[in-house]
This record gives sequence, C-alpha cells and structure tokens, in this order.
Amino acid sequence: MQPFFRYNWIVREQWYAWCEEVPEEELLKARTGGVGSILKTLFHIVDVEYSWIMFMQDQPDFEDPFDMYASLEQIRALDRRFRPDVEAFVTAWEPSMETRPLPSERPDGTSEVHAWGEVMRHVIAHEIHHVGQLSVWAREIGRAPVSANVIRKGLIVPST
Amino acid sequence: MQPFFRYNWIVREQWYAWCEEVPEEELLKARTGGVGSILKTLFHIVDVEYSWIMFMQDQPDFEDPFDMYASLEQIRALDRRFRPDVEAFVTAWEPSMETRPLPSERPDGTSEVHAWGEVMRHVIAHEIHHVGQLSVWAREIGRAPVSANVIRKGLIVPST
Repeated sequence: MQPFFRYNWIVREQWYAWCEEVPEEELLKARTGGVGSILKTLFHIVDVEYSWIMFMQDQPDFEDPFDMYASLEQIRALDRRFRPDVEAFVTAWEPSMETRPLPSERPDGTSEVHAWGEVMRHVIAHEIHHVGQLSVWAREIGRAPVSANVIRKGLIVPST
Repeated sequence: MQPFFRYNWIVREQWYAWCEEVPEEELLKARTGGVGSILKTLFHIVDVEYSWIMFMQDQPDFEDPFDMYASLEQIRALDRRFRPDVEAFVTAWEPSMETRPLPSERPDGTSEVHAWGEVMRHVIAHEIHHVGQLSVWAREIGRAPVSANVIRKGLIVPST
C-alpha cells in the first residue's frame, strides 16, 4: 500500500511544480471531463484522500469548497496541512486492516459496507485516474505532462 | 496486488461494452494526449500489461503494431488470448516477489534494475492513468465515462 501512496505524492509534487510554469488562467480554465479544471482536480485529489482517511478513523470530514483554495499556493498549503495525518495512517497500515469493515451511507441514504482495503485502493486509483485527465489537458495547452511511470522513482529497492 | 488487477479487468470490460455504443470512427479518431485514440489506448493497455508480465518471466515480448488490431473485436480477442497467462502470474503473486530484481535496459542502451513489485504497480497505474484519459475523451463526444470507483465492485469482502 505504502509504495502507491508515495508514488502519488511524488507525482503530485511534480504536477505542482509543472503548474508553476503555466499561467494561472490556464490552471483555472473550465475544461471538458473530470471535475473541470486543473487546480480543481488537484484540490479534489487532496480533499478525497484526506476525507476517506479521516472517515476510516471516525474523524470529521473536510467540507470546505474549492473557492476557498483556488490558487496553487493555497492547495499546496492545504496538502501540507493534511499530509502528516494521512502519512501517519498510511505508514501504520498492516495486512489485518484489509477486510476491516467501514459502514457507510450511499448518496440515496441506504447503508453499505466497504472493506478498508477497498477504500485505500479507491483513494490510490482516484488520484491516478484524475492525473490521467490532467495529462490530456496538459497536451491541450501544448505542454508535456508529468510522467506517470511508477518505475524509476526508487519506490522499492531490488534485492541483490 | 490481485484486487487492483481484478479492478482493472472489470473496468476494461466496461470500457469494451461502452465502446459498443459508440461509432467506430469516434473510437479510431485521433485525439489530443495519451497514445492518441480510444482503441489505440485499449490496445496499448493490453499490450503493456502482457509485455511486462512476459518480461518478468523471461518470455518473448509482444511486438505487433496497433494496425493489426484496429477494431474493438480484435482488441477483445487479443485480450482474451493474453489473459490466461497474465492471470496465472497475478494469481501466483506472493510478497517474496516484491523485491526480486528485473535487470533491464533503458531506451538509451544503459542498464537498470527494477523490483518486480515496482513493475507490477507500474502495470496497474499504467492502465488507470490511460483510463483517466479515456474519461476526458468520452465527455468530448458527449457520453458519460465508465465509473473509476474501486469501491462497490466486490473486490474485498469486509469481515463481519
């Protein structure tokens, strides 16, 4: 589990750096698909990761709207604020948590139960999916996207 | 590892079904970003998954070009042909394989070593990333994309 979170955090930092080179109006521009703009996507990634990890720990959700964080610097600051809690949870992850039940409510009010292992993978895939959308929008504005490679990031040291 | 592969296979099948409802010219149309068209993306996902898993087993690579499989039915048939080998490898995965070294060659001819655990996650993230691109293109042609949710797919049964 940890290598995928570390992968996402590395790629996220690279997208923040990528954003520094792009005019803010391009970062805020409404786009087709996903949640609709580059900065809104980065905010959404940070929000969803934190919210699920708080929810598993029975902690209050984060519900602030994007409008309160509509700049690269504000999103980075929010991410820095959330990271210690997220990282502590991810670092403490162990196999026995895979099937732990998370009772939850569907949008229609009926109840359902997710396994913690499903929720963790949901958070991981959620970011990778939205970053795929960023990669299309990057090309639309004529810029190379950040690499999505998992290899060559030093995530797991091969045995010798 | 297995839940993520099963997730990708479920989502991939749903994209194949989604493609059935879309005119073939839209599926083949050149698009901005990624590898350039919806069918080329699905072919690329199948190709890359199979090629890495063959490579770890020291088996010959798959090198056929997209032009030989440029229809939904041909890509589905290729995927069906590859799946038993891929599935056998994924099912046999165990933690001791995480750090097993995979000596490899960079595009420039110099040598490098990946850990098998990195390669498996690379294959998983590769598909999710490209599917994120499909989701933008789906909206461009006015259609709702396949859901990228990991939850609600029955991947891990919560304990009671």
